[in-house]
Amino acid sequence: MIKSVRLEAGKPPESISLSDISRFLEKPRGIIWVSLEKASNTEIESILSGVFNFHPLAIEDCESIGYQTPKVDDFDHYLFIIANAIHPDANLKDLATSELNIFLSEHYIVTCFTDEAMSCVQNIWQRMSKDDRLSARGADFICHAILDTLVDEYMPLLDKMDEEVEWLEDQVLANPETATLERLLTLKHMVMSLRRVISPQRELINRLTRDEFLQISAVSRIYFRDIYDHLVRIQDMSESIRDIVSGAVDIYLNSTSLRLNTVMKALTIVSTIFLPLTFLAGVYGMNFKYFPELELTWAYPALWFVFLLIVVLMLTFFKKRQWF
Amino acid sequence: MIKSVRLEAGKPPESISLSDISRFLEKPRGIIWVSLEKASNTEIESILSGVFNFHPLAIEDCESIGYQTPKVDDFDHYLFIIANAIHPDANLKDLATSELNIFLSEHYIVTCFTDEAMSCVQNIWQRMSKDDRLSARGADFICHAILDTLVDEYMPLLDKMDEEVEWLEDQVLANPETATLERLLTLKHMVMSLRRVISPQRELINRLTRDEFLQISAVSRIYFRDIYDHLVRIQDMSESIRDIVSGAVDIYLNSTSLRLNTVMKALTIVSTIFLPLTFLAGVYGMNFKYFPELELTWAYPALWFVFLLIVVLMLTFFKKRQWF
Amino acid sequence: MIKSVRLEAGKPPESISLSDISRFLEKPRGIIWVSLEKASNTEIESILSGVFNFHPLAIEDCESIGYQTPKVDDFDHYLFIIANAIHPDANLKDLATSELNIFLSEHYIVTCFTDEAMSCVQNIWQRMSKDDRLSARGADFICHAILDTLVDEYMPLLDKMDEEVEWLEDQVLANPETATLERLLTLKHMVMSLRRVISPQRELINRLTRDEFLQISAVSRIYFRDIYDHLVRIQDMSESIRDIVSGAVDIYLNSTSLRLNTVMKALTIVSTIFLPLTFLAGVYGMNFKYFPELELTWAYPALWFVFLLIVVLMLTFFKKRQWF
Amino acid sequence: MIKSVRLEAGKPPESISLSDISRFLEKPRGIIWVSLEKASNTEIESILSGVFNFHPLAIEDCESIGYQTPKVDDFDHYLFIIANAIHPDANLKDLATSELNIFLSEHYIVTCFTDEAMSCVQNIWQRMSKDDRLSARGADFICHAILDTLVDEYMPLLDKMDEEVEWLEDQVLANPETATLERLLTLKHMVMSLRRVISPQRELINRLTRDEFLQISAVSRIYFRDIYDHLVRIQDMSESIRDIVSGAVDIYLNSTSLRLNTVMKALTIVSTIFLPLTFLAGVYGMNFKYFPELELTWAYPALWFVFLLIVVLMLTFFKKRQWF
Amino acid sequence: MIKSVRLEAGKPPESISLSDISRFLEKPRGIIWVSLEKASNTEIESILSGVFNFHPLAIEDCESIGYQTPKVDDFDHYLFIIANAIHPDANLKDLATSELNIFLSEHYIVTCFTDEAMSCVQNIWQRMSKDDRLSARGADFICHAILDTLVDEYMPLLDKMDEEVEWLEDQVLANPETATLERLLTLKHMVMSLRRVISPQRELINRLTRDEFLQISAVSRIYFRDIYDHLVRIQDMSESIRDIVSGAVDIYLNSTSLRLNTVMKALTIVSTIFLPLTFLAGVYGMNFKYFPELELTWAYPALWFVFLLIVVLMLTFFKKRQWF
Repeated sequence: MIKSVRLEAGKPPESISLSDISRFLEKPRGIIWVSLEKASNTEIESILSGVFNFHPLAIEDCESIGYQTPKVDDFDHYLFIIANAIHPDANLKDLATSELNIFLSEHYIVTCFTDEAMSCVQNIWQRMSKDDRLSARGADFICHAILDTLVDEYMPLLDKMDEEVEWLEDQVLANPETATLERLLTLKHMVMSLRRVISPQRELINRLTRDEFLQISAVSRIYFRDIYDHLVRIQDMSESIRDIVSGAVDIYLNSTSLRLNTVMKALTIVSTIFLPLTFLAGVYGMNFKYFPELELTWAYPALWFVFLLIVVLMLTFFKKRQWF
Repeated sequence: MIKSVRLEAGKPPESISLSDISRFLEKPRGIIWVSLEKASNTEIESILSGVFNFHPLAIEDCESIGYQTPKVDDFDHYLFIIANAIHPDANLKDLATSELNIFLSEHYIVTCFTDEAMSCVQNIWQRMSKDDRLSARGADFICHAILDTLVDEYMPLLDKMDEEVEWLEDQVLANPETATLERLLTLKHMVMSLRRVISPQRELINRLTRDEFLQISAVSRIYFRDIYDHLVRIQDMSESIRDIVSGAVDIYLNSTSLRLNTVMKALTIVSTIFLPLTFLAGVYGMNFKYFPELELTWAYPALWFVFLLIVVLMLTFFKKRQWF
Repeated sequence: MIKSVRLEAGKPPESISLSDISRFLEKPRGIIWVSLEKASNTEIESILSGVFNFHPLAIEDCESIGYQTPKVDDFDHYLFIIANAIHPDANLKDLATSELNIFLSEHYIVTCFTDEAMSCVQNIWQRMSKDDRLSARGADFICHAILDTLVDEYMPLLDKMDEEVEWLEDQVLANPETATLERLLTLKHMVMSLRRVISPQRELINRLTRDEFLQISAVSRIYFRDIYDHLVRIQDMSESIRDIVSGAVDIYLNSTSLRLNTVMKALTIVSTIFLPLTFLAGVYGMNFKYFPELELTWAYPALWFVFLLIVVLMLTFFKKRQWF
Repeated sequence: MIKSVRLEAGKPPESISLSDISRFLEKPRGIIWVSLEKASNTEIESILSGVFNFHPLAIEDCESIGYQTPKVDDFDHYLFIIANAIHPDANLKDLATSELNIFLSEHYIVTCFTDEAMSCVQNIWQRMSKDDRLSARGADFICHAILDTLVDEYMPLLDKMDEEVEWLEDQVLANPETATLERLLTLKHMVMSLRRVISPQRELINRLTRDEFLQISAVSRIYFRDIYDHLVRIQDMSESIRDIVSGAVDIYLNSTSLRLNTVMKALTIVSTIFLPLTFLAGVYGMNFKYFPELELTWAYPALWFVFLLIVVLMLTFFKKRQWF
Repeated sequence: MIKSVRLEAGKPPESISLSDISRFLEKPRGIIWVSLEKASNTEIESILSGVFNFHPLAIEDCESIGYQTPKVDDFDHYLFIIANAIHPDANLKDLATSELNIFLSEHYIVTCFTDEAMSCVQNIWQRMSKDDRLSARGADFICHAILDTLVDEYMPLLDKMDEEVEWLEDQVLANPETATLERLLTLKHMVMSLRRVISPQRELINRLTRDEFLQISAVSRIYFRDIYDHLVRIQDMSESIRDIVSGAVDIYLNSTSLRLNTVMKALTIVSTIFLPLTFLAGVYGMNFKYFPELELTWAYPALWFVFLLIVVLMLTFFKKRQWF
């Protein structure tokens, strides 16, 4: 689906037909925003190549399926930006990212994605009619608004992770199971994947802030710096989560060997008490002809006293050693 | 709460009304210090935006709740600094930081925080009337004094951590419990969090020292370098604490398996002694018709001698193997 | 085997004899591509040294057997590039790379390999007659096409690794065996080797993109940047695989100690139930003269009741402790 | 204690009174060396502030107690250097450093320490009358001589560590005890602390070599480079020690589980032999009326044969499995 | 031992007496190579200081015993290079390096070593009369030839390590013993030491390639780049060995706990089978007056059937759980 609009300071956004875009590009007035949503390859070819005449490599990147590393390429007249959004309904099993491609020039911004939806683009499109700063400040400000929303959408995922890790931390102490370890390791893997997505994104925004691209005014640069700060914070949070996960894995593994210790103590206590008793009972079950103790009337009750004595002594010994 | 004061070399600090600030900004003489304490969003908007006309992004940062990464932003006429203070009563469970925002220009310094209290600002405010260097040396020196106090407040926390880790190190050797491990891992997590707070702060101070900001004179730069050295030392200390914690965790985990060894040795000694004895007793409890030993008078006492012999031999064997 | 061809924009590729190459080099028109396939040392010497007069060290690198680190050397008039291809049929036991040497100048490209086959070179050679961009855009574009194909051939290996690691991850949970661990560690070793091959390759392509080599036009540089992006993605994938492998090794090692726990619990349950029972049976097997219980008619059935009681109590106790 | 001396090429060192220093500083001829040993705060203030008028922050650093990170500060007319010496009698429990402060200008060198003794300064002071290079080559050469001696004093500690780690390595194999692990971890902690002291010191010397300080002549820079090389070597040695310690900890931890294996094998062998035997003995102790074996004359000796057979078979089985 | 020779393009090497060297240095024609082999301190002083007048610090480095970090120092008229050779008969216990010192100027090269032999120097000395490139291309080419040979001598050691690690990897699977672990850790330590030797050597060669030293011509720089590539490859190989060693250590440690598992399973199987049997035998050994089962003729054979049943059921249960 292709949507296009012309923006001019102080005026409401006005729809613009595809044929008018070419005319606009020759004699630009204000800015235009073309949004390719759930774009088919035909649409991409016809608009990006046919109308805008973008570089074949950039168009190839738009069409390609599968994860692309975030980056910014400078094609003199325009910037080509790849960013990765997170599905708002991202679960904690594996990290699903969807790719957003942006072409940014002084006079236009073209956004393109092939997935079902891209909330950061769609939100800003809707805000366009209400927020006249978007019309007034140029294409770079719209680009900032989109990327800012895209980055903000990482937060709910991090919050979910944070909750999960805290729940797992409690779980590890209360009831350590293999399932807990698996979830911890899945979470760790998620955090690592997230960092690999955030890190180049941070570098991308950093370049937009630092390099003197003609397409981004000095005023807008401060706004991109703001996105950069958000990403730094997100990275800090993800490192913090990774630390807690590592600590929880350590506690889990230790709890495994602690339970082994408990089991072994139980076994040792029972064996150490009953093996001597059984031996003694065995002794008085022997069939020797000459066996003086067997004749004594008090021998049997006395032996029970010895049994009790052994049990009490053993338990005292284990108590002293703090075995239970 | 909004407090404001005008400082001039050789004169005592003099209160200045909000309306006078605007006049001062047009024709500055000496410097002014405006302090927003426990600031509400209304106060922040009216002063920072209304009077000083600071950049909306900086004001947004002042209003935002939640951890912000320390940074310095250069808005040409003024610097915007975010630093993170530690609550003087910080416990060792989790790291609570509170954010301090500073706007620094040649003619004024504006400090702003939304928390209950910020001792580093309040200390310097009180020192103002006694220490005339603060009036004489300009806004950058006041900024240095505040940040220096802020950084110094990290030390008590590190000292507490140091004490705790030493106590835990002894604990791990004397009486290793799961609680000890948990506290060790909490402490490790604390140290890691602390490093993530200190590291950008160090970078922030480094930039104030290194970059040639107009707002900071060459003379003051040496003072900021001094803060930088403190932060390096604090980072060294935190790394040292992390090392000791890691070592203590290693000893703890080893102690778990050592105790397992002890338990298993006890079990093995008891089993190895009593299983053969019980077998022998069982043999002479058999009911064979033809059983010559049973007839012998000395057989029963002789068997007790054999029992004793086995016990002595086993114990000698274990002694030799250093099992107890 | 030596193949050589002359390319000119708008014309079909035309074979060129070895003797014509020397004449061409004196007065170049269009570009030539000389491809040494499965080259013997004699061929290498006669062409690279005899005809092109390349530097002896570069020729030595072409002749040498064994892994060479990817690199680009600038010999003023030409670039010498070493890249490492992966056998398309690479297995997951150890990483077999084959070396591709490229000499690139404004007027010619010489590719050289000593292995049986090098699909990236052979593919481009075949595409030459169909794709006239190869003739039109110069030697640097052909070099790009070869390196792009070479890098794309890494993907099937990574996909295979990805599949293997996912299969192993399931295996580790379902049926952890030493063989699984070995395969995990082999895979880890493979990934590490792969990264050591990719990393200098990435640096090599980065230099071709960044450094202003005369042999590579500004237009082509964008295409090399595209290869660079692919390599970054491949490196990301390999890091992700390494993370999953590490997690799987952790689960494996934990499963070993979990099984030990299970075994020990079984032993402890059986021992703890039967040792007291055996003791009791032993007691009533004693031969004391005075042994009142033995006379009672209900004693024997009562003892069976005691036996059952002990078993039930023990099992309840273990159930409560969640031992099974 | 304050000592001061004037040095001139070709002349013996000549004592100079404190009052003459001020005159010297106005019209310098030759160089002076002022040494503050075991300096009280009063002495520091009167000389460093009163006579030399050094920067208050540098004086504060001289007075401060506790570890200071090595650094060099450039105050235009003089350099301020903080270095950390090691007590020659340093033990291997924790790293005690003592701080040496040096003020270096073209015409003077001021050394200052607050500890009891600082052998590197005192050695050079004594060498002064014998070694006329110290008089002839200027203040920077004296500074080099002091720092060179200071760095050389690290070597005995590293040698001690090296001996200790080798002794511990043997200990770990021969007789692994918890005390051995503790000493290993203490040593590891020591090495880590040492590296944190050496690393900034190396950076400090590197800056003296690399940066073009006016106070250090090109000729002297080569000598500072020599100190730098020593520090690199010391760092290499400390890394080597850390590696060996890590290896020894690994062997120690493995030895713990190996001993567990040995204990468990002993238990298993004894149990596996005697449990079947005891069962058999128990069988023939049963009181069944109809029990044909009991009547046979050869049954009892035959059973002993069976007992022996079981023992021999079991031992053969364990032998084959290499359990002992 | 001191050897010296004068080389001129197109002429055979000609011996030169020590006294002639001084004359040569005043009016150089061609180049000279002075080689101090197994040099005593007297020889070093007389030649390096007396004849060539090298810097005292460089001479000190030549005389010093013990490991020196590889480096290159630029003394304007000459370069001073320290490199570390490996004894060709290096074993795999610890890394013995021997130091080679080279003084390189436009007109001469001086090599100096204090060890028994230095094959890289002695090889080149012998090649001198056969290979006229050495005479023709200047002192920097001789220096390259020596360093190239020195670096090539690392390969046999790496090959030996590679073989050893592969043998150990097999060993770890077939027959894991403490000795295997020790050898693995020794090998790991060796690799780490080797990397610490190679890394500064690589940096040294890199500087010779990159920095524009007057003593090294642009033509020779390409040859030094070739040595650099070799060192990169050697470092790659050593990293690969380290990875395999780490993997083997992991397998070793896992095999320890696997064997514990096997032992424990054996114990559990035997106990779980014989403890119930022994109990049952004990029951029918009791002496109760009223004991109906004892009177039954079929009771004894029936009990054996029960015994068999228990054994079969237990074995089936363990089989199902895959315990053997």
